[in-house]
Amino acid sequence: MPEPLRETVLEPGTAAGVSRRRFLGAVAAGSAGALLAGGTPRVEARASITAIEQAQGDALPEEDFWSRVRREFLISDELAYMNSGTLGPMPRPVFYAVVDGYRALASDPGRENARQVKAQDDLRQELAAFVNADPGEVALTRNTTEGMSFIANGLDLKPGDEVLCTFHEHPGGLEPWKIKAKRYGVVVKELPFPIPASDPAEILNLFEDAITPRTRVISVSHVTFPTGCMLPVRQLAALARPRGILTLVDGAHAIGMMDLDMQDLGVDFYASSPYKWAGAPVGTGFLYMRRESQDRVWPTVASMGWDDEEAGAQRYDRLSQRAGPLLLATLAALEFQNAIGRGRIEERVRALAARLRERIRATPGVTLYASENPELCCGLTGFALEGFDRIEVVDTLWRRNRVWVRETDYGLNTVRVSTHHYNTPEQVDRLADGIHDIFKEGTI
Amino acid sequence: MPEPLRETVLEPGTAAGVSRRRFLGAVAAGSAGALLAGGTPRVEARASITAIEQAQGDALPEEDFWSRVRREFLISDELAYMNSGTLGPMPRPVFYAVVDGYRALASDPGRENARQVKAQDDLRQELAAFVNADPGEVALTRNTTEGMSFIANGLDLKPGDEVLCTFHEHPGGLEPWKIKAKRYGVVVKELPFPIPASDPAEILNLFEDAITPRTRVISVSHVTFPTGCMLPVRQLAALARPRGILTLVDGAHAIGMMDLDMQDLGVDFYASSPYKWAGAPVGTGFLYMRRESQDRVWPTVASMGWDDEEAGAQRYDRLSQRAGPLLLATLAALEFQNAIGRGRIEERVRALAARLRERIRATPGVTLYASENPELCCGLTGFALEGFDRIEVVDTLWRRNRVWVRETDYGLNTVRVSTHHYNTPEQVDRLADGIHDIFKEGTI
Repeated sequence: MPEPLRETVLEPGTAAGVSRRRFLGAVAAGSAGALLAGGTPRVEARASITAIEQAQGDALPEEDFWSRVRREFLISDELAYMNSGTLGPMPRPVFYAVVDGYRALASDPGRENARQVKAQDDLRQELAAFVNADPGEVALTRNTTEGMSFIANGLDLKPGDEVLCTFHEHPGGLEPWKIKAKRYGVVVKELPFPIPASDPAEILNLFEDAITPRTRVISVSHVTFPTGCMLPVRQLAALARPRGILTLVDGAHAIGMMDLDMQDLGVDFYASSPYKWAGAPVGTGFLYMRRESQDRVWPTVASMGWDDEEAGAQRYDRLSQRAGPLLLATLAALEFQNAIGRGRIEERVRALAARLRERIRATPGVTLYASENPELCCGLTGFALEGFDRIEVVDTLWRRNRVWVRETDYGLNTVRVSTHHYNTPEQVDRLADGIHDIFKEGTI
Repeated sequence: MPEPLRETVLEPGTAAGVSRRRFLGAVAAGSAGALLAGGTPRVEARASITAIEQAQGDALPEEDFWSRVRREFLISDELAYMNSGTLGPMPRPVFYAVVDGYRALASDPGRENARQVKAQDDLRQELAAFVNADPGEVALTRNTTEGMSFIANGLDLKPGDEVLCTFHEHPGGLEPWKIKAKRYGVVVKELPFPIPASDPAEILNLFEDAITPRTRVISVSHVTFPTGCMLPVRQLAALARPRGILTLVDGAHAIGMMDLDMQDLGVDFYASSPYKWAGAPVGTGFLYMRRESQDRVWPTVASMGWDDEEAGAQRYDRLSQRAGPLLLATLAALEFQNAIGRGRIEERVRALAARLRERIRATPGVTLYASENPELCCGLTGFALEGFDRIEVVDTLWRRNRVWVRETDYGLNTVRVSTHHYNTPEQVDRLADGIHDIFKEGTI
C-alpha cells in the first residue's frame, strides 16, 4: 500500500483525518460560495476592496474619499458611532466573511473545517506583516485580556518580584497580575502620572525611579483606556531591556488606529484586540511574542504542539478547534485596512482627534484629559464636563445628537470619544455642539 | 443631579458606559432584525422551532420525524456527514443567530454590544439547565481544551502529586497536564484499558489499583475520542471523592449526544464543546465547576471580577469582550435540541450506532473497537479494516460513497464514525456497504 498523502495537522481533535486529497477536494469545491484559504470572501467582499482601490485612483478630495470608504460599512450615516475603543463596526467584507464561513460550516462541515484550519497559518502571517513581526512571533488569541493573562500566567516569578504598571491600566491588563500577586506573592505597583500628560520624559522618569533590583516586568497600556494617553512604550522598552526587565504592552487600542511596528517598538510582548480599531469581528485577538523572549513563558492553554521548541509563538495558541470564520474575517479586515493605507488611516484618526480637542477645548466647562503633545495623544480622547455626571452626558449625547460615546471613571468623571476614519468632521462638530448645549442649558 | 441609572457590568472595557436607559433603548430598537436577549432570532429561526413542534404533534413515523428535523439543517441530503465528533453542522436557527448577531454589531455596535453582553448570563443559565447544574457552576469557554487547561493550570499541585488519565485522552485533555508535569513536577499516569472494553468494573478496578496517597486528580474523557468508549465517570467520581481526589472530565462528545446530568455524575469539573454534538457554532464551550470544588481552582484568564467570592464559576470566565453572537447562537442551539427532546436524541443516536455496529460486525475484515456494552458504547464508533490503512479507507468512503468520517491512530489504525440524529439508517448502510466493497475488491 502506498504511503498515504496526509495533511500535517497539529490537532488530532480538529482537522486530523483530513488527507491532502480530501483537502484539495475541499479547495476545489470552493466555488460554491466558499472562500479560498487566506483570500477574500466572494464577489461582494472583493467589490469592497475594488471600491477602495478605485477611490484611491480617483484622487478624490479628502472627505469624498472617506465618504466612499464609509459606504463599505453597514453602519447608517445618521449614527455618529464614536466608541471604536470598546468595539468597532466591521466593514462589509469582514461581515461577509463571517457569514460565508459559518454558512459553509453549516452546509459542508468536513471540507470547510479543513479549509478553515489552514487559515490559522495565513492569519499569523498576515498579522505579522501588519505589525512588522515574524509569523513565528504571533499567537492567536481572542482579545487583549487573554494575551495579558497568558504572559502573566506563563512567567515564572518569585514572591517579592515586582511588576510596574500605571494607575490607568485596563482591568484586563491589570487583573492577570493581581492573580499573580495573590497566588505567588508578586508585587504589583501602579504608578500615577499627570493627566493630561505633556511630556514623555516625565513618564519615563517615573518608571526609571520606580525600578528596583526586584523589578521583573513593565506592563503598561500603549494607549490608556480611561483618558487616551499614548504611553512612550518604545522608550520604556529601551529603558527596560538593558536592565533585564521584560516589557508587556496592553495594545488593545493601537492596532488599526496607528501604524504599528514591533521591531521599532522593541517590546517583548504585545497583546491586542483587532475588533476595536482594525475592523475584525469580535472574538479575535493576537499576542506578539518577541522570539528571544519566548523561552521565558510557559504556555497556558494547550493541546498538541505546545512543547515543540521549533514552533515559535504557535506554542501559545494550541487551542484545538477555534472559530475559523472569525480568522478568515480578520484576514479580510487586514486586507481592507491595507487597501486604504495604514498611514492614511493614522493621519485621518489624528486629524479628527485634533479637531475634537480644538472644538471642546473652546467649550466652557470642559477639562481635556487627552494630551496635546503629538507623541502622547491619539484617536482616544477623554474629557470631563464640569458640573455634569459623565453618564448623564453620555446618555444626553445619544438622545439628542445620536452620538454614541462611552464613559470611564477612575475618579475623573470622564467622557471618552473614539475618532476613527469612518467618523466625519461633521460628527465631531455634532458632538462638540452637543457638549456645548449641555453646559449652556445647565440641565440634561 | 439625580443618581444615574446604571447598568451593572463587570467589565469596564466592554459594555461599561452603557446606562440602563441606553440599554433599554437598545432592546426596544430590537425590532429591526435584531434578537431579544436570550430569545430566538427572528422569524426564520422561530419557524424552525415551530416545525419541530409540529412534527412532534403530528406523531409521525420515526423516520418521517427525523426527516423533518433534518430539513432544519443546511447540509445537503446527498452528503452523509458522519463526523460530528470533530465538528457538528449547525441547524438553521443557530446559523441565523450568528448572522443576526454579527450584522447587528456591524450596523449598530453600541446598542447591540450592550444587548449581547447580557447574553452571557442567559447562556450560563440555559447551559446550567441543560446539564442539571446551577448557573453559578457554569463558566463560558471556547472549547474543551480551554476548560481542561483552566483546571490543570488553576489547581495548586506539588511535585510528585499524581494525576490519573487513560491512555486514550485527547491531547486537549492530556497536554494541559503535561505542562503541569514539566513546569511543576506533577506526575501524569496514562492507564491502558481493554479495547474494546466490555465491563465497566474492569476499568474501575484499573483506576482503583492505580490510586496512591499522592493521587490528586482523576482526569478522563467521558467518551474517548480515538475509538468511542464511554467511560464510567459516575462510578469514577464515586471512587474518587471519599479519597479526596478531584475528578475532571473531558466531556467534548457527550453534550448534545447524551442527556447529561451533572448532579447525577457527581464529578468536580466537566469541560465540553457544544459545537460538536449540540449544534452550537464553533468557538463556544463551557466548563462545569461543582460549587464545593471551586475554591480549589485559581482563575487563569482574568479581568475584573475574578476575585469576587460570591460570583461562582463566572470568576473563571472574566474575559472582557467575548464573541456575543456565538453566545446567542448557542442559546438557539440548546432551544433547538430541547424542542426535539434530549431523550429522543439520545435514543436516535444509540439506535444508529447499534445499526452501524451490527452492519460492520458482519463485514469481513472489520475489527470493532467500540464496546457492545450499552454502558460503554455511544454515538462514536471506532473500527479497523484489516489490510487497509485508515486514511485510505476514509478517503475512499468520501470519494465513492460521499460518506465523511475521520481517522484516529493510537496504534489501532482506526476509522471513526459519528452517528447523530440527522444521520439516517440509509447513510449507515451506505457506509457499511462502502467498507464491504473496499474489503471485497481488495484495492482502493
